[in-house]
Amino acid sequence: MQKAAEKETIKDVEMKLMEMGFAPHRIEGTGRVVIGAVGESKVVFPTGLEVLPGVEKVVPISAPYKLVSREVKEKGSEVTVGDLKIGGTEIAVMAGPCAVESEEQLLTIARHVKAAGAQVLRGGAYKPRSSPYSFQGLELDGLKMLNRAREETGLKIVTEVLNPQEVELVADYSDIIQIGARNMQNFSLLREVGRANKPVLLKRGLAATIEEWLMAAEYILAEDNFQVILCERGIRTFETSTRSTLDISAIPQAKSMTHLPVIADPCHSSGSWRLAAPLSQAAIAAGADGLLIEVHHKPEEALCDGPQSLTPEKFVRLLSSLSPVAEAVGRSVPNNSSLSMTKGL
Amino acid sequence: MQKAAEKETIKDVEMKLMEMGFAPHRIEGTGRVVIGAVGESKVVFPTGLEVLPGVEKVVPISAPYKLVSREVKEKGSEVTVGDLKIGGTEIAVMAGPCAVESEEQLLTIARHVKAAGAQVLRGGAYKPRSSPYSFQGLELDGLKMLNRAREETGLKIVTEVLNPQEVELVADYSDIIQIGARNMQNFSLLREVGRANKPVLLKRGLAATIEEWLMAAEYILAEDNFQVILCERGIRTFETSTRSTLDISAIPQAKSMTHLPVIADPCHSSGSWRLAAPLSQAAIAAGADGLLIEVHHKPEEALCDGPQSLTPEKFVRLLSSLSPVAEAVGRSVPNNSSLSMTKGL
Amino acid sequence: MQKAAEKETIKDVEMKLMEMGFAPHRIEGTGRVVIGAVGESKVVFPTGLEVLPGVEKVVPISAPYKLVSREVKEKGSEVTVGDLKIGGTEIAVMAGPCAVESEEQLLTIARHVKAAGAQVLRGGAYKPRSSPYSFQGLELDGLKMLNRAREETGLKIVTEVLNPQEVELVADYSDIIQIGARNMQNFSLLREVGRANKPVLLKRGLAATIEEWLMAAEYILAEDNFQVILCERGIRTFETSTRSTLDISAIPQAKSMTHLPVIADPCHSSGSWRLAAPLSQAAIAAGADGLLIEVHHKPEEALCDGPQSLTPEKFVRLLSSLSPVAEAVGRSVPNNSSLSMTKGL
Amino acid sequence: MQKAAEKETIKDVEMKLMEMGFAPHRIEGTGRVVIGAVGESKVVFPTGLEVLPGVEKVVPISAPYKLVSREVKEKGSEVTVGDLKIGGTEIAVMAGPCAVESEEQLLTIARHVKAAGAQVLRGGAYKPRSSPYSFQGLELDGLKMLNRAREETGLKIVTEVLNPQEVELVADYSDIIQIGARNMQNFSLLREVGRANKPVLLKRGLAATIEEWLMAAEYILAEDNFQVILCERGIRTFETSTRSTLDISAIPQAKSMTHLPVIADPCHSSGSWRLAAPLSQAAIAAGADGLLIEVHHKPEEALCDGPQSLTPEKFVRLLSSLSPVAEAVGRSVPNNSSLSMTKGL
Repeated sequence: MQKAAEKETIKDVEMKLMEMGFAPHRIEGTGRVVIGAVGESKVVFPTGLEVLPGVEKVVPISAPYKLVSREVKEKGSEVTVGDLKIGGTEIAVMAGPCAVESEEQLLTIARHVKAAGAQVLRGGAYKPRSSPYSFQGLELDGLKMLNRAREETGLKIVTEVLNPQEVELVADYSDIIQIGARNMQNFSLLREVGRANKPVLLKRGLAATIEEWLMAAEYILAEDNFQVILCERGIRTFETSTRSTLDISAIPQAKSMTHLPVIADPCHSSGSWRLAAPLSQAAIAAGADGLLIEVHHKPEEALCDGPQSLTPEKFVRLLSSLSPVAEAVGRSVPNNSSLSMTKGL
Repeated sequence: MQKAAEKETIKDVEMKLMEMGFAPHRIEGTGRVVIGAVGESKVVFPTGLEVLPGVEKVVPISAPYKLVSREVKEKGSEVTVGDLKIGGTEIAVMAGPCAVESEEQLLTIARHVKAAGAQVLRGGAYKPRSSPYSFQGLELDGLKMLNRAREETGLKIVTEVLNPQEVELVADYSDIIQIGARNMQNFSLLREVGRANKPVLLKRGLAATIEEWLMAAEYILAEDNFQVILCERGIRTFETSTRSTLDISAIPQAKSMTHLPVIADPCHSSGSWRLAAPLSQAAIAAGADGLLIEVHHKPEEALCDGPQSLTPEKFVRLLSSLSPVAEAVGRSVPNNSSLSMTKGL
Repeated sequence: MQKAAEKETIKDVEMKLMEMGFAPHRIEGTGRVVIGAVGESKVVFPTGLEVLPGVEKVVPISAPYKLVSREVKEKGSEVTVGDLKIGGTEIAVMAGPCAVESEEQLLTIARHVKAAGAQVLRGGAYKPRSSPYSFQGLELDGLKMLNRAREETGLKIVTEVLNPQEVELVADYSDIIQIGARNMQNFSLLREVGRANKPVLLKRGLAATIEEWLMAAEYILAEDNFQVILCERGIRTFETSTRSTLDISAIPQAKSMTHLPVIADPCHSSGSWRLAAPLSQAAIAAGADGLLIEVHHKPEEALCDGPQSLTPEKFVRLLSSLSPVAEAVGRSVPNNSSLSMTKGL
Repeated sequence: MQKAAEKETIKDVEMKLMEMGFAPHRIEGTGRVVIGAVGESKVVFPTGLEVLPGVEKVVPISAPYKLVSREVKEKGSEVTVGDLKIGGTEIAVMAGPCAVESEEQLLTIARHVKAAGAQVLRGGAYKPRSSPYSFQGLELDGLKMLNRAREETGLKIVTEVLNPQEVELVADYSDIIQIGARNMQNFSLLREVGRANKPVLLKRGLAATIEEWLMAAEYILAEDNFQVILCERGIRTFETSTRSTLDISAIPQAKSMTHLPVIADPCHSSGSWRLAAPLSQAAIAAGADGLLIEVHHKPEEALCDGPQSLTPEKFVRLLSSLSPVAEAVGRSVPNNSSLSMTKGL
């Protein structure tokens, strides 16, 4: 309440709270009165009361998420993708090109990342691009190429869906459905992937708080799909020397709030392959359960995001460099570097 | 190029640019070499070159938007909604509740805002809410109520669409289709409203640069729908005493870059009805072509966004206060305040 | 308290609060327990309690500022600078070059801004520059030139101080001492200007919340100098098409929290003279008590901040355009444009 | 140049550039003309030209820093503090309380951090506090206590200076002078520590770009003090669940731009001791040369920053957990944990 609030005004607010189903609880401070509102606020959190005379501000105390919360499920969840478990001791490595450009491009890269140790192939068939004139993806043809890459290499497939109508199609061709940062609060899409029977990779929005990110996951769980993997991919800040700012604190912070696994995308966040290694190492050290890495055999010709893509050689070196860091924090990284080295990659 | 880049390296980059269809243009600086890349970059802007040895950074010079640009159309566009023109001398006033809650609620508010002078009724039938447990809108029933309010009052209707599949339905029941901030880069949705034959109100994303906002509009124009109204609704910053930060500079800045009309939403941006009046006045003074205002007859009971809603009485006073500011900058505000006052509102 | 907190843990926290001089006040919620801490928190706000077992978070309820608060002094303060009052009906106009470059430059500009109607001449003798190699100001010589400009034109002088040791000197030569954005939390400097017997113009820091800005002012008032003018000059956000983001909401928001006058700096915030007029108009419409404007007769040769400086001709037109907006909100702008026009400026 | 710029206008700009000492270099693009300005821009970077007719924008190509640049000194610098080298293989660990509160408090903590392996004792004698009513530090008495702690334990001392006038005093009592985030662009203070013969720890400002941070360091080097250690301590973003956002990318990014060592402060950045371990591990994995850690034996009673302070027991465990991560990236951490464990700490 405001300092100047009179007794009558305070009573009015308490009456209103009771009408709304809350038990008001008055605290007489030395300077002002605070009213605690006790009760379940399923539908209406009483922010509307801020318009009443004498009310200074309404402060929420309880977190608004339920199913994703660690308070509800204390033990960390593992998301199962065939024989792969994400959220366990082994770090999940998802790698591949930003966009599927051609069968030859995709298969070449898939063989490389498989050989290096990755378990999941990433690659966009539907691409969200700032410009309508940029390459928008090969769509269904891209999905089919991903399928072929899976058949040949045994890699699992993660690929992005943009439109609720395409969820079923994308689910058919992939093992993990990706929701991109720009669609983190596309609630129609969240509900639709909640109804799909496939694991979902949910990227954090560029301006989303950790709480909003967890609420977006809550949409998916509320539809009975509990197979959600969170992905920190950098937030938008004033800093311009990196493309966005990887919020490294968000990894342990989110993991303390939710039981869901959290992975990191060091390539998109930084916009530079030069930062991929230190940021991957940092993410694992901070507790990430996996990594999403862009790999392209000809990054200078990539139809999107070339500057942040690793060549296969650099990717092999990256995985090698991650093993000791993972071990240092009691984890492991899939890593066939000795093998692939002898193969002359 | 990097300072240390050697002649051979520089030549390689120039060769690569030529392969990509650009004419390289070398400038020998006192410290380093800069290569200008001349040409049309329809599909691939050559950022991929950043991975080449010796390349320090790739800096774009031309703006990536075309159809929305003032360079293409120097005169400001007017968007026509029946007998209403947005982007002309008269300020467009769109007012109503955050969400359609019931026929009685909507009609009550509609009569009030009509009487006060508003030309457009706002109200959400589909609500994007951070929490899956919050009120999500009355959906089709809400659309029908909006339709009835239009029939009774003659107000135009603006309402939000969330899902590409619902664009046709929403277009049938409304005069202006709204794309919310969270969907500004929902490209499937943008393309779909681009194919609708209805004006579109495009809100700026919470973390979208002005350029990205214009690119989102470009998606709609690229589908041949030129009836786009931009809406500045606050960006996300570190400041917490207001819900978001109304980027007042974005109004004149966007208007210098594009011919499309730009309006402002002072309620969502601030999160407080107390700031609605000064921010509305500021927006008009800065050149806004319209305002989007939340009005609720019982804000303390509103199912969403109560604290930022004006009562009908406050809305009448707001419009009265806007008239002299509008006149001061050569504009006018629809304003029946004398009339509505005598009616005892 | 955390949901899982046990009775003993809760009692321990209450005991600790009592030891610290607070009266604990327990609220048993449906899900968790909240403890209100009633008392004066002069020195230690009990955030340290967050380390105790069972404590989830500590939320402050009372604002930490006292002397600057509107709760303490309901009526807005006027700051008196000779015969000029800042915070009254008339908008204060402070104009001049970014930096004092030479006597001729300063006097030329001073005559122009005086003729146009400005009451205060701005100009930096000590310049805070990002680069040690940029022009750093003429220092004492610059102060002397400002003094001569005052003698000739009768304009009041506002100029920045960077170093606590130079406060006395700067106070001797100026009518208003400016604290720049980068020094908003330079507490040694704040205390020193608090001891000076001169009005202080306190710019908001680029990343300072409104509350921190008011706390910085509190430092000055706590030293018994109540003559403080706040200046909103833009905050740092992700947007890059303007130099910073003028936080227009901060003007009415700060004025609701404090009795001190608030002015705006549309030139620094936008970094472009093209935005000076719409942002000045917006600031006045939003309730600003004054404006700080950069004027230079040869902006293309200015030693700093040329792109955001108005020519004298543009400045005359700016003031003319402000008069009707000021009148629209019950204020006035000093404006000799008719006069100066006839003088052929 | 703008698209519409005419030949005469373009020539005028080129003439102006020549007058300013630049060699203009015209590139005729397909849509517009770009003019490269070749030359040394010691004093005036030609941004002023943006006011000329036809000029669209002025884009800097060369970095403005010189002495701190890796282009000037390719090998990483080591800062020497007695027998301690910062920037070499061994991670520097600086630990201690936020503020010096009493001799007993400081000595207790000093013995603990020494036993655990820290090489440097941190502790503020002069405290920059948002509120004038918060504890401001013991000043000279605090410096003397730090001195006694050094004599007893052999730890080096790092402590903050707020006022140019106190630099000499602080330098006398410390081994490393700290510039806090709020003073990163306090140029008087930077110049003064540049003249001191002591290593300087320069924290990044809350809203400072990496480039501005390097420019602040340049101020110190320009005064001939090359002993500068950079400290990333979190930037201000929209995220509120952590106190600020540790910019982990800034560590490898800054190290690629400058030869100076870079350390991290995981406590201030997160505001929570719970994040100290994962963020310390991440910082080392990302290439940090040292850590600044808050340790307090009674954090719940600390006069400032209790929630982000580790107890001595947690600090011992932290250092133990860092060793394997440091080894994983070819570094080492000073670590007496086995020893101190047996001592029963």
